[in-house]
Parts: sequence; structure tokens; C-alpha cells
Amino acid sequence: MGTREGGYAVGRLRREQIVTAATELFSRVGYRHATVLELAQAAGISRTGLLHHFSSKEALLEAVLQRRDVEDTARLAPAQTDETGLTALAALVDLARYNASRPQLVALFAVLSAEASAPDHPAHDYFVQRYRRTVEGARRSLCRAERAGLLAAGVDPSRQARALVALMDGLQVQWLLSPDDVDMAEEVRQQVQQLLTVPLPGSD
Amino acid sequence: MGTREGGYAVGRLRREQIVTAATELFSRVGYRHATVLELAQAAGISRTGLLHHFSSKEALLEAVLQRRDVEDTARLAPAQTDETGLTALAALVDLARYNASRPQLVALFAVLSAEASAPDHPAHDYFVQRYRRTVEGARRSLCRAERAGLLAAGVDPSRQARALVALMDGLQVQWLLSPDDVDMAEEVRQQVQQLLTVPLPGSD
Repeated sequence: MGTREGGYAVGRLRREQIVTAATELFSRVGYRHATVLELAQAAGISRTGLLHHFSSKEALLEAVLQRRDVEDTARLAPAQTDETGLTALAALVDLARYNASRPQLVALFAVLSAEASAPDHPAHDYFVQRYRRTVEGARRSLCRAERAGLLAAGVDPSRQARALVALMDGLQVQWLLSPDDVDMAEEVRQQVQQLLTVPLPGSD
Repeated sequence: MGTREGGYAVGRLRREQIVTAATELFSRVGYRHATVLELAQAAGISRTGLLHHFSSKEALLEAVLQRRDVEDTARLAPAQTDETGLTALAALVDLARYNASRPQLVALFAVLSAEASAPDHPAHDYFVQRYRRTVEGARRSLCRAERAGLLAAGVDPSRQARALVALMDGLQVQWLLSPDDVDMAEEVRQQVQQLLTVPLPGSD
């Protein structure tokens, strides 16, 4: 049993290492270009070894996408307890700031989300669902702020939620191309602030 | 001379046909994936024939990008004569509406602009310059509106120009993934309208 648990732990660690290497390779050469052999080499294991942990390149892509979601959800979760929505909106600014520390992953998501608009792309459904979830999360925060009387006059939570997510995506493209010209966190902060009647917490 | 002009005309027509076929193929399989042979086959000519008109895949990509810019500039140019900037801002709404009629080209630009964040990508400089130009164009229109006293209180033209371009890009990704959920032109119209103290012309 102890050995078995040790085996599981080693397996988990190895899977994490493969996902890390795959994230780096996908970010650099794109998902479609990376081969299973290259992915295995990047992770320092054999092709057979990689396929023991992930049955296909698609399965590995799924793991890469899921890891980011797990990380981001963990970052954003504490803010969800604030019933005014303000902490969750401030967390979007923090997310933009954090994204500025991981250009490769941001680039990967930018390429993949566009590639995945093709209905036969393996990540198509993932991105459709991801955007629904993200827009819905932003809408919920804005609705909370509205109920707390903190939204500026005329702000429509549903419309602004979609616009806010779009803004964050679009800024990423401009920032990836000209990192010195674009301060993503500050741009997001200013736009969110315009929707509110009170100062956004924790971002000055 | 007549024959020579005829020859030029045929050459131009053939180049246009190749660019059309390349736009379609790049949009479908991505720039990096398309081979010169496939591009030639898509245009219905030989590989040598294609290379007679375009020396490389990069040169053909450049022609694809330039054609869109020439078309879009022609669409947006008449609006530039309005010294209040309002017509130019309304033209951005029209551009969003027009983009909804060409999903393949929109997808191509979304993938390419993200791929091109790699400094060694053949379209890197093109996209850096394109965003500078686009943001500057939006800023000029907002500055004109400001001088005409038509901007809402507290609107910063430079900041809102960048945000407006980011919004349009981000909406494209959401629309490509879920076309029935997103009305790009209406979203852009509402966001631009919020920046103004008067109704945006010609888009209702």
C-alpha cells in the first residue's frame, strides 16, 4: 500500500512534469506543430513513456488547459465570498497583472482560442465553455455590485461582463506584440473603475 | 505596348486569384501549416507558377495582410473627413458588422496576431505596426470628438483608443467561438456610445 501510494505520487509528479514541458513547447511552436515525439523529448522521457501517461496529444492539451484553469480558479476563489462583487472585480486586475508574468501561456491561449474557433479543433468545446463560464463569472460580480448599489448609472452587467472579458483578451494581444507599450493590469483597472461608484479595492 | 499592358493585367488578375486562394487556405489550416504546394494547388496553378508571382510563402502572407488593410482603409477613409470624429467612430461599428460577414479572415487575423507575438514570426513587425496604427487612428477620432465637446466626462482618448481596439479583438474571439451569442457590431456601438454625449450617427 505504501509502495502503491509512492507509485501514485511518482506518477502524479511525472504527469506534472510532462504538462509543464508541454505547456512550454505548445507555447513556443503552437499546438498543431508539436509532435508527440517532441513533447516526450521536452519532458525527458520516451514516446512510449509519454503515451503511458497521456493517451494522445489531445489528452495532453486538455491537461495543459485544465492546469491553468485550476490555478486561476484557486487564485480567484477567495474573492467570491465578497457579496459586493468588488473583491472579485479587483481579482480580475490581479489576474491581468499575473498574466504579465507568463507571456508564453498567454500566447498559447491566444493562439489556441482563435484556432479553436474551427468546430473540429480538439479544444473547440473547451473554449466555448470556458468563455461562457468566464463571462458568467464577470456578470455575477457586476450583478452583486449592482445589488450593493455600487454600479455607475446605466451599466448593464451582462453587456459589460462580455466587454470586460473581451477587453482582457484584446489587451493580451497588444501586450504580447508590444509589452513595453501596454500595462494590462492598469488598463483593466481603469476600465473596471469606470463601471463603479466607489474605488476598486487593493489596486492603487 | 497594348500586349504588354494586357500582360500586366493578366499578371495582376492572377496575383489577385492567388491571394484569394491563399487567404482561404491560411484561414482554414493556419499560416504555418500551409505549404507552397498546397497554396499553388488551391490557386489552380503549379508551384513554379506560384513562385513566379510570389517569391515565398512569407511574401504571399504579406499580400494577404496588405489586401485586407487596403480594403479596410478604403472602407474607413471617407469617415476621416468628419472633423468631429463621430463618423469615424461609427465606421468602427460598421467594420465590426462587416467582419461578421468574413469569419475566415477574422479567424486568420486572430491566429496570426497571436502567433506573431514571437519576434521571429514573419508577420511580427507587421502586426506591431498595425496595432500602433489602429490604436492611433481610434485615438485621433476620440481627440476630434473631445475638441468638438462630444466626449463624456473623464474619457481619456489615448486610454479608450487602446481599450476600444482591444474590445473589438476580444469580441472577435468570443464571436468566432459562439457566433449566435455575440453581436459584435451592437457591442461595439454600445461601448462607443458610452464615450459620447451625443448619439452615434448612422447605426441603429
